[in-house]
Amino acid sequence: MPSEKHKWYIDHTSPGTAHIYGIENYITSFQTEYQQVEIADTEIFGRILFLDGKVQSAESDEYIYHEALVHPAMLMHPAPRRVLVIGGGEGATLREALKYQTIEHLIMVDLDRQVVEHCREYLKSWHQGSFDDRRVTIHYMDARAYLEQETATFDVIISDVPEPVEEGPALKLFTTQYFKLIKDRLSVNGLFALQAGDTCLPFIESHSAINNTLNKVMPFAMPYRAFVPSYNTEWGFILSAPFETALPAAETFDRLVEERKLNLQYFDGETARAMFAVPKDMRKHLNQETRVIDDDNLISIY
Amino acid sequence: MPSEKHKWYIDHTSPGTAHIYGIENYITSFQTEYQQVEIADTEIFGRILFLDGKVQSAESDEYIYHEALVHPAMLMHPAPRRVLVIGGGEGATLREALKYQTIEHLIMVDLDRQVVEHCREYLKSWHQGSFDDRRVTIHYMDARAYLEQETATFDVIISDVPEPVEEGPALKLFTTQYFKLIKDRLSVNGLFALQAGDTCLPFIESHSAINNTLNKVMPFAMPYRAFVPSYNTEWGFILSAPFETALPAAETFDRLVEERKLNLQYFDGETARAMFAVPKDMRKHLNQETRVIDDDNLISIY
Amino acid sequence: MPSEKHKWYIDHTSPGTAHIYGIENYITSFQTEYQQVEIADTEIFGRILFLDGKVQSAESDEYIYHEALVHPAMLMHPAPRRVLVIGGGEGATLREALKYQTIEHLIMVDLDRQVVEHCREYLKSWHQGSFDDRRVTIHYMDARAYLEQETATFDVIISDVPEPVEEGPALKLFTTQYFKLIKDRLSVNGLFALQAGDTCLPFIESHSAINNTLNKVMPFAMPYRAFVPSYNTEWGFILSAPFETALPAAETFDRLVEERKLNLQYFDGETARAMFAVPKDMRKHLNQETRVIDDDNLISIY
Amino acid sequence: MPSEKHKWYIDHTSPGTAHIYGIENYITSFQTEYQQVEIADTEIFGRILFLDGKVQSAESDEYIYHEALVHPAMLMHPAPRRVLVIGGGEGATLREALKYQTIEHLIMVDLDRQVVEHCREYLKSWHQGSFDDRRVTIHYMDARAYLEQETATFDVIISDVPEPVEEGPALKLFTTQYFKLIKDRLSVNGLFALQAGDTCLPFIESHSAINNTLNKVMPFAMPYRAFVPSYNTEWGFILSAPFETALPAAETFDRLVEERKLNLQYFDGETARAMFAVPKDMRKHLNQETRVIDDDNLISIY
Repeated sequence: MPSEKHKWYIDHTSPGTAHIYGIENYITSFQTEYQQVEIADTEIFGRILFLDGKVQSAESDEYIYHEALVHPAMLMHPAPRRVLVIGGGEGATLREALKYQTIEHLIMVDLDRQVVEHCREYLKSWHQGSFDDRRVTIHYMDARAYLEQETATFDVIISDVPEPVEEGPALKLFTTQYFKLIKDRLSVNGLFALQAGDTCLPFIESHSAINNTLNKVMPFAMPYRAFVPSYNTEWGFILSAPFETALPAAETFDRLVEERKLNLQYFDGETARAMFAVPKDMRKHLNQETRVIDDDNLISIY
Repeated sequence: MPSEKHKWYIDHTSPGTAHIYGIENYITSFQTEYQQVEIADTEIFGRILFLDGKVQSAESDEYIYHEALVHPAMLMHPAPRRVLVIGGGEGATLREALKYQTIEHLIMVDLDRQVVEHCREYLKSWHQGSFDDRRVTIHYMDARAYLEQETATFDVIISDVPEPVEEGPALKLFTTQYFKLIKDRLSVNGLFALQAGDTCLPFIESHSAINNTLNKVMPFAMPYRAFVPSYNTEWGFILSAPFETALPAAETFDRLVEERKLNLQYFDGETARAMFAVPKDMRKHLNQETRVIDDDNLISIY
Repeated sequence: MPSEKHKWYIDHTSPGTAHIYGIENYITSFQTEYQQVEIADTEIFGRILFLDGKVQSAESDEYIYHEALVHPAMLMHPAPRRVLVIGGGEGATLREALKYQTIEHLIMVDLDRQVVEHCREYLKSWHQGSFDDRRVTIHYMDARAYLEQETATFDVIISDVPEPVEEGPALKLFTTQYFKLIKDRLSVNGLFALQAGDTCLPFIESHSAINNTLNKVMPFAMPYRAFVPSYNTEWGFILSAPFETALPAAETFDRLVEERKLNLQYFDGETARAMFAVPKDMRKHLNQETRVIDDDNLISIY
Repeated sequence: MPSEKHKWYIDHTSPGTAHIYGIENYITSFQTEYQQVEIADTEIFGRILFLDGKVQSAESDEYIYHEALVHPAMLMHPAPRRVLVIGGGEGATLREALKYQTIEHLIMVDLDRQVVEHCREYLKSWHQGSFDDRRVTIHYMDARAYLEQETATFDVIISDVPEPVEEGPALKLFTTQYFKLIKDRLSVNGLFALQAGDTCLPFIESHSAINNTLNKVMPFAMPYRAFVPSYNTEWGFILSAPFETALPAAETFDRLVEERKLNLQYFDGETARAMFAVPKDMRKHLNQETRVIDDDNLISIY
């Protein structure tokens, strides 16, 4: 290892694989009621937020993750007015959703107030002031409790919660029961998008089970992926709806982006074409998946 | 628990980033006249070949790299009979090319006899006996010297050489001069495909310069990428031809794969759609590239 | 620059501390019935033997460990003729013991034939042919079984077995019951020396318990230490006898080394003075130790 | 590596060797005009101060280093009244010197005010308020400039500066010229002690050259060593005087410690016996050393 670097962060993807990040400076590090939080500056990826030892998002490429998560669902809705964001503590999911002029109410539900408050202070380039937008309301509570008590519906629901690590805060946010709660809270044309784990073949098990589970609940559910440099992998998402529909053509996405005057770095029609086309080997794996996650049959990753 | 792992291989992508691989067993390790060669077994990726400290290919996913490299070019040719493979010491590029029943002569030119001989012995699942196919001829020599002396032409030329590391053996196999030699040796419908480096945005400089250079030499040149798990990144390739043409539609690729009775794990029409669609941020980067590599103006990676 | 190093061996001393060794070349690596064996070449320490993930001995400084282990006991005996070595698979303990011209029978008892055979082949500078000395007999068996069946006595017994790691082969070779078996097999002037673990204060627990246990069995038992560069720590030993006695003065050791015409690199009178003087903090720790290890109350290290 | 640990500090002792420390929490990290400063908490060694990437001292065992550095010289002086400490930013060298009731003036000269101020804030268990003792005066300046301008003499001078790393702040504090300045500022019975680098044989070159250099300047100069767990090595010191003398016997040291009512954890007569006895191999190395360091012929370590 180059001897000028002394501080390294090791993100293990399995007992025998890891990515290591040379740290320029540690900004803050603390343990909340729910998770271990670390923010540090790196040379290559700029500032990084780590939760429970895993890269959550990086300054240099969080736009890829957040645009991929938010825009397919938002663009497929004719005019999203009420949007629910679950998780999304960095505020960047809010930032992307707020780009739509039709938005009237943007509700964010996050379990961990401490994370949000630290992101507000240290991750300014992520949220860019979104927490202070008058259309935004934040509830610090468990997403399932919120969904059970809420009676209104949403045009788009976006789930931006950490992966299901053992005893982690998001373990029950990938189950049949949870997805049914979501479905009940979608409006007539409502769409649901979620981050859905690593799609790298050796580590695809979680993504694959989540995809199969959501496909059992929703009539329309399409997995897609975006390569995020700081993750060192193609990250998985799923776009879904409680009705039958089809993915818009690349040209339609391009037209919608233009009509809605969105200023995007990553997403457009050609990007959508790359994201939603699933290579043959991964397709085979997803098609053969039979596991369904439910509250009594949870899955967790390393 | 991870502490049972003692042997780790560190592949640095920059002074401040690296991927680390827990090694089950080192198979062989030696220094040739040209490069440092290491073969080791891992739990996640099976056997891995490392050249000059970098993962070259892994048992578990080399099919992705080799199918991505070989088939777009081969399928675009109406009936490839004479094919030239430059590099490709593992023998897996040969293996893929030999799947075409039209092949009459498959010439492989590799600088480093020692690498090929060790691959023949230790990487049997890669070459699957291809070195012994009667249609195959191997020349152990510098590719440029070969191209300068060779007068025949080829239907498809595939360049499968290591990245241009400083003082590495492939430094001069990414230049204008080299690409012109290639162009001269292509037959009327000839195509040229090459591995063209990491496309991960922080490390895209080499890929970007290679792509711009080849675009100046060839009337048709399209960059594409495939995510390879053991590389932890989307790897870049370029498909090119000395005439104007267009990429076949996904359905055409599917039909061609079927007609030619190819048994493939990774490549098909939908995979092609994913590979050749370039996300907006990467497209912007490639479009703004102005560097042209030539023999007097080389580039090298970390 | 360090980044040219790709192969690293990580020897964890605790979950939060480790020493890492850049490997030039792996020589061999295998799993025997009893332990994981690895032999590798390093730049700084030359060849290293690792057992179960821990440095066992290194070419550059094994003379320190082996001279420290063997000579205090051998020199305190007036004329050692029959000597028993338990463990010592590298053959270097034999090598040191064979320097005494009075030796008639040198019995070595080692559990793991495979280790001994690989050491014979790969660690020639360690054993220097000692395995072939006509005075040497090797039994491949459990040391306790050997001691229970053996009726003859020995002038010196030397225990050179690995540390007591969980489920490791030497777990029961540090107990009261074992030390009593040893005591029974010592001749009238017999002495017993053993390697007794790390004395580094954060990791002294094993050494401290072994020392207390042996002090309960033997009327004379003195802990001592030698700093071994490749271990990155001061290694512990204990010299003991089944009768009351005192450590010879430094001058006496010097005289004995000369009389017996020993050619030594590390041990002499002044070295003995350094080894047997125990710093105040360590002395306090050893004096306060109350644990006694027995077959029903084993200890193991990380 | 155990997956619960994510933050690691790597202290390279050579391109192919390093010690790694799992970090619980980073406390502060900054670059001064002279050096890189990092303070972090570890599980095994408590808080650690790192300068330019190297462990400087650790909460759990700094008493070993500081007692070893200070007391042999202080105890050999009949009644130290004026003492000069060069470096010693942590304040622990002051703490040890202040244990002597005869002290009237304790002058500390340290180049780097920022380091001292941060130590005062974050390393309270080190200095224990010593900076505020009315007998202490601190000058923030280059030690050589101070020595050249100072006309008074000192009973004991203690040099506690970092190792001579290339372009480091202490590079010229190990030369003949520097040692002569020191000699000129010693009172009639004056003594000089300094930290003198790693004595681990593969890395002894710096210690060995410093020892030879000081032996050329001072009629009395004795190297000694103490194993410091957080350094993973036996650290070197040299005790010297501008007159011929001999080391007190262990019993004398014990008597002096008692007479002066010192409360010590590490140092006593038996510890002195261990520290000042040099093993045969190291003695041979030191005796064969011929290098003399001077301002025009500097040495530096990795």
